[in-house]
Amino acid sequence: MTFEFTLLHTDADSRGRLGRIVTPHGEIATPAFAPVGTQATVKALDPRDLRELGAELILANTYHLYLRPGADVVAEMGGLHRFMGWDGPILTDSGGFQVFSLAENRKFTDEGVLFRSHIDGSQHLFTPELVVRVQEQLGADIIMCLDECAEPHDRAYNEQALARTHAWAGRCRSAQTRTDQALFGIVQGGIFPDLRRQSAGFLVGLDFPGYAIGGLSVGETKEQMYAMLDITMPLLPAAKPRYLMGVGAPEDLLEGVARGVDLFDCVLPTRLARNAALFTRQGRLNIRNLRFERDPGPIEAGCGCYTCRHFSRAYVRHLFKAGEMLASRLATLHNLHFLLQLMRDIRAAIAAGRFSAFRDEFLANYPIIPHEVRVTNREKRRRRNKARATSKGRRGKGD
Amino acid sequence: MTFEFTLLHTDADSRGRLGRIVTPHGEIATPAFAPVGTQATVKALDPRDLRELGAELILANTYHLYLRPGADVVAEMGGLHRFMGWDGPILTDSGGFQVFSLAENRKFTDEGVLFRSHIDGSQHLFTPELVVRVQEQLGADIIMCLDECAEPHDRAYNEQALARTHAWAGRCRSAQTRTDQALFGIVQGGIFPDLRRQSAGFLVGLDFPGYAIGGLSVGETKEQMYAMLDITMPLLPAAKPRYLMGVGAPEDLLEGVARGVDLFDCVLPTRLARNAALFTRQGRLNIRNLRFERDPGPIEAGCGCYTCRHFSRAYVRHLFKAGEMLASRLATLHNLHFLLQLMRDIRAAIAAGRFSAFRDEFLANYPIIPHEVRVTNREKRRRRNKARATSKGRRGKGD
Repeated sequence: MTFEFTLLHTDADSRGRLGRIVTPHGEIATPAFAPVGTQATVKALDPRDLRELGAELILANTYHLYLRPGADVVAEMGGLHRFMGWDGPILTDSGGFQVFSLAENRKFTDEGVLFRSHIDGSQHLFTPELVVRVQEQLGADIIMCLDECAEPHDRAYNEQALARTHAWAGRCRSAQTRTDQALFGIVQGGIFPDLRRQSAGFLVGLDFPGYAIGGLSVGETKEQMYAMLDITMPLLPAAKPRYLMGVGAPEDLLEGVARGVDLFDCVLPTRLARNAALFTRQGRLNIRNLRFERDPGPIEAGCGCYTCRHFSRAYVRHLFKAGEMLASRLATLHNLHFLLQLMRDIRAAIAAGRFSAFRDEFLANYPIIPHEVRVTNREKRRRRNKARATSKGRRGKGD
Repeated sequence: MTFEFTLLHTDADSRGRLGRIVTPHGEIATPAFAPVGTQATVKALDPRDLRELGAELILANTYHLYLRPGADVVAEMGGLHRFMGWDGPILTDSGGFQVFSLAENRKFTDEGVLFRSHIDGSQHLFTPELVVRVQEQLGADIIMCLDECAEPHDRAYNEQALARTHAWAGRCRSAQTRTDQALFGIVQGGIFPDLRRQSAGFLVGLDFPGYAIGGLSVGETKEQMYAMLDITMPLLPAAKPRYLMGVGAPEDLLEGVARGVDLFDCVLPTRLARNAALFTRQGRLNIRNLRFERDPGPIEAGCGCYTCRHFSRAYVRHLFKAGEMLASRLATLHNLHFLLQLMRDIRAAIAAGRFSAFRDEFLANYPIIPHEVRVTNREKRRRRNKARATSKGRRGKGD
């Protein structure tokens, strides 16, 4: 079975689509959200958990796996599916974004990007050819072109990065030797409509089996992100899947679907979970809060996840206060269930012709984190990552 | 259903026994090993994992739960079983050992023990009456008397501590108000045969529904520990279960069973797991070792645990090197399976009349950690715990 996308239904009131992706490791009902397993594990969970959550696609990071344990080790162990015990579809990114956000002393040239590992400071060169080879060694079902993610507001930098991203897209296409992996092109262009149009046009010309939208959710406002989707989506062929990279806030999933996105991935639900921030339809709650000390109820009433079916807020709070690993596990199960259930609800709503009503209703109840708070949080995270990198990555964090 | 012990069979070649304990929350086939859930969670696992591992009894620590989240919180949430989502039998210790090993500025008097919390330095007084009340609030099926654990080689201290332990045992018996919990007395006496005899005799006179042997595996040699069991066991009534506290090394389970022990508990398998030390029938291996980098085999060939059925040594090593939580989870599943399977094998061997042969065969293959190494490791751990306590317990460790 090779890669195949079938568009099943298009929403009458929006650009929302229902589809099905077939891969060598199984099917994915779209629109879909992919949990992120940075280092060949979705943090705190095992593959059985992911199955039970109903995850149909997971993502792993080429940058991380290339550095540790090494793509050759994964290949020798039978490839990523076997290595991590997950027999469903996997997508690997190209590493471009991690070089942008994690690596030190990065230097982009037409040849590729030279950088130092955040783990041990060792120097590496990612070329389009190398990242395709590495992704072929890893063996994911969907793989990505090497791209250069630029600061979204910098016009000159975006022009330059885009030219490189396009040249690299062609080289990635040529470098591909395996026929059982779907290589996606990545549309870039920051917050500049003409660059986004140019990028979509160029990549469509290369006829990829799928298209990603990169360089969003990296500091621009939500309005800017939605505007870029409004511009880009209509230029992509309806018969190919569209993947919005690194986006996972509930409101963005709804807005993305409304604009024609078929795939999403993000560390948000798993990272928030480890920080005790839990999704509910009324917004996030921080379970460390004292008001939950004696709260016998579940994290969210009516939630069907393992955590909510078995444990009280008081218990989950206790686990966080006590520094127990089970805290992260139970919180991660809940947050991923929340997003995967949201995607199931979205798909059902599209199928029933009531997606717009569903979206309005959800958004009416769900408070959105203000732009300034998101920017501040991202900045804090970046500083933390840098500090970790400086201490030579004693710990294996990185999403 | 109240507490009941049935002795089903006694081994012909040893003091080994097969039995069954009935508790309000289910049955326990003995001899049994109880995983430790210090802070109302067996670290890195959830209750479903424990069920699937075949655990029939787990232990939780009164000292830890009294300090955090507080016994009143647990009681208000419906008791420990409901709070932690484990509906099987639970045993709580009295907190005496944690005061001995973790707390600061402890001061024993006839009234009780005054100590400072390792978490926040707050001062507390454990009396026999209080620890019974706290354990009644927690609601375990088996609860323990407050005892004073003394340095095993200090004769004068052991004499004094024993007198107190005996007085407290009587006060605990009198303080009990719930009739659905089995209160065990704890035999102390260090490495002194006459004190052990005196202690067993005194406690048997109080007619407890079960007897624990405390103050072992705290620095004495294995030969000294086995000698104390040889002396104590024949003095305890055959119709009551015997519980060897804090013992969990494979060789000690076999030697304990051979001397008539019915119950064991220990943090060893879970703590070793988090430190990448994994049990095999040929001894422990450290999975971080470079020689496992490309090892496609399971941790132990033939092992039926979830980890060995799904993952390679190479993958588990990668998870440890990358600092992933799943490392601890997979390692804990393996180590607990190893000990619980060992107990199943021991029970089957006793039932089949071939326990001595089984023990000899196991011990012939299993290298035992030398006494000096164990003493050094314990000293390191104690210093680490003290350092943690000094930093006011930001992390919730404590076993």
